[in-house]
Order: sequence, then C-alpha cells, then structure tokens
Amino acid sequence: MQYPEPIAKLIDSYMKLPGIGEKTAIRLAFYTISMDQDDVVEFAKALVAAKKNLHYCSICGNITENDPCTICADKSRDQTKVIVVEQSKDVMTLEKMREYHGLYHVLHGVLSPIEGKGPEDINISSLLKRLQKNTELSEVIIATNATPEGEATAMYISRLVKPADIKVTRLAHGLAVGSDIEYADEMTLYKAIEGRQEI
Amino acid sequence: MQYPEPIAKLIDSYMKLPGIGEKTAIRLAFYTISMDQDDVVEFAKALVAAKKNLHYCSICGNITENDPCTICADKSRDQTKVIVVEQSKDVMTLEKMREYHGLYHVLHGVLSPIEGKGPEDINISSLLKRLQKNTELSEVIIATNATPEGEATAMYISRLVKPADIKVTRLAHGLAVGSDIEYADEMTLYKAIEGRQEI
Repeated sequence: MQYPEPIAKLIDSYMKLPGIGEKTAIRLAFYTISMDQDDVVEFAKALVAAKKNLHYCSICGNITENDPCTICADKSRDQTKVIVVEQSKDVMTLEKMREYHGLYHVLHGVLSPIEGKGPEDINISSLLKRLQKNTELSEVIIATNATPEGEATAMYISRLVKPADIKVTRLAHGLAVGSDIEYADEMTLYKAIEGRQEI
Repeated sequence: MQYPEPIAKLIDSYMKLPGIGEKTAIRLAFYTISMDQDDVVEFAKALVAAKKNLHYCSICGNITENDPCTICADKSRDQTKVIVVEQSKDVMTLEKMREYHGLYHVLHGVLSPIEGKGPEDINISSLLKRLQKNTELSEVIIATNATPEGEATAMYISRLVKPADIKVTRLAHGLAVGSDIEYADEMTLYKAIEGRQEI
C-alpha cells in the first residue's frame, strides 16, 4: 500500500530539507495533518514569503528584505571594521552578542578544492571592491569557521588584503567559556596555550 | 538585531514541528531561502493540500483522501481480523510487510493517566461499535507499542472485547531479527524466553 498522494508529496518535500531522512519526513508529514489548519496555512505562506521577499544585499551579501541591508544602510555603525563570515546566519549570531558595531561581509561558502569551490565561487571579489571603494575601512576581521576550509579561506583573504595596508585579524581560538579542560581536544588546547594572555 | 521578518516567521513555523528546536529551525529557514523557487512553492502547496485533502476514515480512523479508506472499502480483504494500532503511520508500516490482508483500527493515541488521556479521548468506542455491527470479525490483534501506556491500552481493550467472545491477541515480543543477544535489554530477553517456540 502506498501513502495517499497528498501525504506522499509532503513527505518528498520534507525530505528535501537538510538532515531530514525518510523516517523523520514521515513523522513530520503525519504531524502536519494533526496540526491546526491556520498554523499549516501560515507555514505555507511563510515559506513562499521568505523565498520571495528575501534577497542578498548588493554590498555585503547578507540576506535582507531591502537593498542595501539595514546594517549597510546604518551610517551610525563603525565604518572602519568589517567581519567576514561564511553564512548569513553567522551575521545574526554575531549580532546577538550586541558588542560589535562594525560592518559585515558574507562569503556564502568557503574555498574547498574537494568540492571544486574556488575564489570565484564565493563572495570574495566584492569584498576587494568594497575595500578599494571604501577607504575608511581599516580592519578586516576574518570569522570563518575553525575548519581546514575556513582556515584556508582566511589565509587566502589575508594574503589578498594585507598588501593594501589593511589590518587583517582572525577570531581567537581557545577554550570555550564554561568548558572543561578535560574534554578539550588537542588542537583547541594547543591554540589556547599559543594564544595565552597575561592577566 | 532581529532576523528579517519573513525569515523570523518561517523560523517560528519550523519550530512548531516536533523535534525541531530553535537552532535547527534557523538552519532549515536559511536553507529554504537557498532552495529552488519551484521546490519551495511545491512544498507550500503540499502542506496545504495534505491538511485540506486528508481526513480520518469514518470506519477505522486511518488517514485517507476518500471516506471510507481504501482498506475499509476493499471487500476482498479478510473481514474477520482487525489490527488495532496507535497511529495512522503504523498502518502504513504494517502494510509495507505485505503479509497481512485484514482490517485496521487506528486509536490515535493510548491511555495515559499522566497526560490525562482516558478511554473517551482515543478511538475505542468506535472499535466496539464496529465489533457489534460486523459479526464476521472474530479476532482483534492489538499492535499498540511495547510501552507501559501501550500495554495498559492493550489490556483495557482486551477486557472490553473478550466478553463478546472475540479472540484478542497481541503482537509477539522478543528479539528483533538480526539483533545480538548481547545488546538486548532484560525485559526483551525475558519476553523472548517466555514466548519461546519449539523448532
């Protein structure tokens, strides 16, 4: 016996989402049927609206409703610093901290020879143009993830930007706040010792 | 900084699904924006269609497009047996086996004093009516889950049905096919020994 067609289609759609396999998709699809009608309609509308109304900011590449995005358009922000991140959600994560008031630049990926991703596949050329155009910018803070690809991307950008006499920095690596030394991996401990600071 | 409104709404919708917390919802929402436009529209349509076009069968309580469902409407199926399950998806799971050709009855839950769920909150009364009306039915196979609530529900139904001189059976408990005795829990082993069969 097959699933009734409407539920089979819904299962297929759920399975297109990352990290959702067949069993989870089936569970979600059946749950959807037991949901409130209004909630389901709202969910459907939110899907279409998010896809339709959100674009990438032409300056920083962040996801936004209006172009340029609210961060790029806000002239009260520190125009001398730009944090380079891999994804739009990293911008949101950093903004939650409420301690940084500079600009951002979203790469939408990292250099990855294995996946065949070169410099032209990520948002690097627009960063260079931005640095040329905006002479106020004096520091590029690279906040790519602490993965081999993230590190390689950081090094690549650093080599491109440094000759223009712009300061390039990288987020500190070390022990997470509240974490136990006992459970830290060797690389993290090594970075924590290497980056030790006087107190 | 807040998420742009369309994405915030989509995150809220994703968070209403079971087993999806804030972090996963954010990941899914951002993934949705990077999806193909057609896929997103199809997903939205599938959601609304599944909710709108699927109903519960008035006989067995299973999810269906037409009432009665294809199983209840199929007179070539064995009309003497009915398997009682907790959820519609259990029907699909049992049907995938292709070895059972009788009927089903979906309870939509189990008795759970902790959650305040009594016999009137699950689909039991319609099972009793069905047994009274359909005199051909001679065996009720209870396939609720092997949880305390599932067992209690099985016992409850058994006590109601047995006086009417209808055979009540329960799915066998024991070792899963392909499993190691080493990793079996005590209760499963106990049930496996208790239910041992001559070979």
